[in-house]
Amino acid sequence: MTKKLAKRFNCPTEFALEVLGGKWKTVLLCYLKERPCRYRELRLLVPRLSDKVLTERLRELVERGLVARRKEDGRASAVAYSLTPRGQSLRRLLTELYAWGEQHAASFGVEVGEPLKRLGARR
Amino acid sequence: MTKKLAKRFNCPTEFALEVLGGKWKTVLLCYLKERPCRYRELRLLVPRLSDKVLTERLRELVERGLVARRKEDGRASAVAYSLTPRGQSLRRLLTELYAWGEQHAASFGVEVGEPLKRLGARR
Repeated sequence: MTKKLAKRFNCPTEFALEVLGGKWKTVLLCYLKERPCRYRELRLLVPRLSDKVLTERLRELVERGLVARRKEDGRASAVAYSLTPRGQSLRRLLTELYAWGEQHAASFGVEVGEPLKRLGARR
Repeated sequence: MTKKLAKRFNCPTEFALEVLGGKWKTVLLCYLKERPCRYRELRLLVPRLSDKVLTERLRELVERGLVARRKEDGRASAVAYSLTPRGQSLRRLLTELYAWGEQHAASFGVEVGEPLKRLGARR
């Protein structure tokens, strides 16, 4: 079960970060904002996560109402994930996170991959 | 010492989240984007943090080059923190986080405080 949200937060930022729920969930949302993805695609986009953790994080996103999970017609094994309207409301924030990372990595002496290109995504 | 950044990240979002460095550092940056704050002001804005943890988080922000720490003239005990230019580059992202939290808390059945009002801040 996903941790229950507190009823009150001291600050809107604390609340927003609690909903985003840490690094991997935010990264997954960032991919899903581009288009619905199958489990297998997400699997390739976050190679450092184990299957167990990836499945858990996706389940938490579904339980929090940010992501919808559906089986594709006629293919019992193909499961696709997409943002719900609530998840879509994070779009601008997620775009800003990705853009900041892309623009500032070099000034920290850091290289970043470009996984959204692998999704064939519009930016 | 602040954890050293990896040299390479799979995704710009992963990198951005690593720089932000978790909930409390992001919350502190969110206040500091409004105006420089004294330690005592920050102390009141994040009452749930212990002095030890608040001091550590501020030190990490300074070490990562996002925040500057200076002693105010003639008052050895008054230390003020402000965003560096690198910290300023996060402004839009921090504003978006706060705004999303403010706009969506009610739909999650959550109340949020309005600490920026206590800073007498422009939004």
